[in-house]
Parts: sequence; C-alpha cells; structure tokens
Amino acid sequence: MGATRWDAPRTAVSFVSAGPGAADLITLRGLQRLQSAEVVLFDALTDPALRAWAPQATWVDVGKRGFCDSTGQAHINALLVRWAAQGSRVVRLKGGDASIFGRLEEEIEALQAAGLSYEVVPGVTAAVAAAAAAGRPLTRRGRGRSVCLTTAVATDHNGQPQLRDSRSADTEVFYMAGRQLAALGRRLQQAGWPADTPALVVSRAGCADQLITDHVLSGLAQAALLHSGRPTVVTVGVGAQTLGQATRAQSPAEPTTPVRLELTP
Amino acid sequence: MGATRWDAPRTAVSFVSAGPGAADLITLRGLQRLQSAEVVLFDALTDPALRAWAPQATWVDVGKRGFCDSTGQAHINALLVRWAAQGSRVVRLKGGDASIFGRLEEEIEALQAAGLSYEVVPGVTAAVAAAAAAGRPLTRRGRGRSVCLTTAVATDHNGQPQLRDSRSADTEVFYMAGRQLAALGRRLQQAGWPADTPALVVSRAGCADQLITDHVLSGLAQAALLHSGRPTVVTVGVGAQTLGQATRAQSPAEPTTPVRLELTP
Repeated sequence: MGATRWDAPRTAVSFVSAGPGAADLITLRGLQRLQSAEVVLFDALTDPALRAWAPQATWVDVGKRGFCDSTGQAHINALLVRWAAQGSRVVRLKGGDASIFGRLEEEIEALQAAGLSYEVVPGVTAAVAAAAAAGRPLTRRGRGRSVCLTTAVATDHNGQPQLRDSRSADTEVFYMAGRQLAALGRRLQQAGWPADTPALVVSRAGCADQLITDHVLSGLAQAALLHSGRPTVVTVGVGAQTLGQATRAQSPAEPTTPVRLELTP
Repeated sequence: MGATRWDAPRTAVSFVSAGPGAADLITLRGLQRLQSAEVVLFDALTDPALRAWAPQATWVDVGKRGFCDSTGQAHINALLVRWAAQGSRVVRLKGGDASIFGRLEEEIEALQAAGLSYEVVPGVTAAVAAAAAAGRPLTRRGRGRSVCLTTAVATDHNGQPQLRDSRSADTEVFYMAGRQLAALGRRLQQAGWPADTPALVVSRAGCADQLITDHVLSGLAQAALLHSGRPTVVTVGVGAQTLGQATRAQSPAEPTTPVRLELTP
C-alpha cells in the first residue's frame, strides 16, 4: 500500500519523522515509506531497531544529532540530492518531528534547487513524548492555554542560553537542553519565572530506559548529572505541574522484536 | 506484543493519540493498544477507519470535538472510570496528541481519584501535521527558533479571541481556529504583528482532502469560507513563509484498506 501511494505521483524523497527514539512511536505512514525505500539517510537519534523495517534498503548514516551535526548539513543536502537524482526511492529519516528543529527547510531547498519532489510525513515531537511519558499534559484547561517550543542550545557571546526576553507562554518546552540545565534555570529566573516554578526533565522519552525527574527552576542544575549524555527535554510552567497522586503505569513498552505490516484483503 | 506489554503491569486505561485525522498517522504503539482493546472511547475527530484495527472492541462515541464537547467532560470521565473499574482493557482514543488541547488532565484526574492506572501514547499534533502537509517547517535555522501553540477558541466578553498581549514567538500556531479567522487576523495585528505577516491555513492536514491556503494577516478573513466546517490550524510568522518554488508532491496518502500487524519471530 505504501509503495503504491508513494509512487503516484512519484515522489523523489520522503522525509519521515521517526519520533522521539522508541521505534514503535513512528507513524504507520512513516513505516510504510520505510518498507518501500531503496535508500534511507538517517540521523544519530533514530532508533536502530527501525532498520528491521527496511532490510531491502541501503542505510546511510548521516550522523546528525540535533543541532550538533557531526556531518555538515551541506554534505547531507548533497547526499540527499545525489541519491534522489539517481532515481532511488529515498527516505530521509529524521528524529522527532521533521518540522521542529530538524533543519528540514535546508534539505527541502536543496531538493527544490535540483527540481526534485518531496513529501513530509509528520511524527511525534519530543515535547509531547515527554508529556506522555510523565503523564503531564502540556495544556491545562483554564490555566495552561499556550505552549512554546524552543531550544536551549543557541548561546550568546557569554556562552549563556539565548532566551526570549520575557515569559509569555503558560508552558515552555526546551529541546536539546541536556548540556545547559544550570544556565537555563538561571536565565529563566532572570526572565521573570519564579525560583519555585516547576521544571520537569525527561530524557529518552517513550523508551524503556526513559528518565523523568522533577525540579524547581532554582534547582535545575541538579538534573544535569542524572540526564547526562541523553536526549533531554525540559518543561517549565503549568505543563510541568503534577496532577495529584499518580497511579501511572511504569515505563512504556519498547518493542524488542520488529513488527511486520501486511495488507488484509 | 502490544497486549503483552500493556498487561505487565496491567494498565487500566491507555490514552492513545490518534493523530490529526488520517488513520495512517497513528503511531505503531497506538495501533497495538487498539488491537488489544476491549473498549474504545473515541472522539468525533478520530478517523472512523481506525475501527478496522479493533473490530473485537466495543466502540463508544463520546462525541467530543475539540473544546466544543457535545457530551460533557464529566460524563466522559464517568464513562472512562466505569469501563475501567469493570476490568475492561480500555483505550481512550483522542484526536491529535492527547497532551495538547485534549483535556487529558481531567480524565487522568478522574482515573487517579478512582485508583485506576493509565498510560499515555503520544501522537502527531495538528501543528506539525499542518507543517508537513504544507512543506513549511515550523522552525527555521537562524530566524525561527520558537514556536508557540495556542487556541483561537476562548473569547473575551466581546466575543473576540483571547490572545496573549504581545507577539513573542517567531511562529504562532492556532488550533481550532476555523470559526475565528477574521477576528484572529484583527487581534494579531493589534498585538503587533504587521498586516502583511504570512498566515498559512491548513484544514484536514494529512488527509486526502486536505486544504492548504496562503494569506496575510489583513486578509485572513478570506480563509473562512474555504475552510468552513473543517478542523483548521493557522500558522503565523516565520513558519508560514514559503521555501521558494515548491515541487512538493500532491496530497499525501490515506489508506483505504486496513493494514494488519503481525509479529515476526
């Protein structure tokens, strides 16, 4: 089914959002694209278990990990265009959702410049994966009506995280925050958030080894060691508040065996 | 696989994010939960095609459509607790992602009060589905580093959409905006966005009949008729800007036949 639909009209490149890490958080559509791929260009943050879905394809590691790309973006663009121009059915597999902090625009523009067609398959972005893992909805009726997604990676000339000047959304979610936790806590307080604002830190959301810790802004530095070296999302404000006594089940499932898709008549 | 993992520890209710509408934008994990469900409580905005995945289950329409719930939230909470307390394996299927504008907190709190366990399976939220459909990434390297998700539904005593006072994020995405387009355009200009700010309107993102139209804030009212009666998302600011000459493929696939999951050894 995936292959048929993908071919009509023939799309050179399918950008597929792989989700936050666990292989079973990819969408069905993304999986179908993988199953009919001839070449898969993948990032460091996508689950190796996804390979089992496309054993027929050539898998090319482009090594990118969030904004810290070890392979340059220009090189990725060139690879993408080269494989697609050869007529190969290319899946560009990106961690999280491709439209959020994925530098998707640069890869699309490279394809456009080469006259190549594309589609984008959306996915589960890290903010909602963290919210689901912790059982903390990002919006709350009556008091949490706006959610802002941003990064803690860009730094100013003092090496401090660049933040917007004011707090404006009810909930702020910071992507790629792992290395900036202490500075992030300081800067948010400078921007007007009270020191005791709840801050929820989640790493490897949705995976069997996910880690969820609760802090306040003034103690955010304490999360650094706990989540060291892991893809980390920080939720601050209303969306970080607990909902009372949780009876939430333990860590969600991560499949250890691949699942196969088959058509039913 | 889904059933096994779900049962250990036994989780009373699995909140499953169905995605923005097209049945194949559900995650694999969500699908697995459906396949082992005994009861499915579903919203108006979830794709009827999802029923094919859980023919064994009792499907209960709770009729909610965004914030405009025709069945009261208290009634949904009571139904959820009743089915779960009976020991049925319950899936609560919610449109989009459950953690964003889904009133998930109220349903979780009802379960907690009854001592019942739950898990949340994240999904594709409308903002990223719209971005993917239009090929317009919500973030842009160097100039679009923050994305704010909010609603255009809540109104003040004059019937105008309640917005935050200032523009602060590079990109703003308004959920459930269909009935408020003219007022939204006015209010955003009052909040400081220039009249010629690009505004992208997408309805039924990811479905075969998705509709994508481009506007500027001062002309946003023109989108109202085009998208009338359809789930609509409005993206304003950097994330609404085009990427140059698009060679994007036509509307994405929507499966017409269900796909079956099977384990491979």
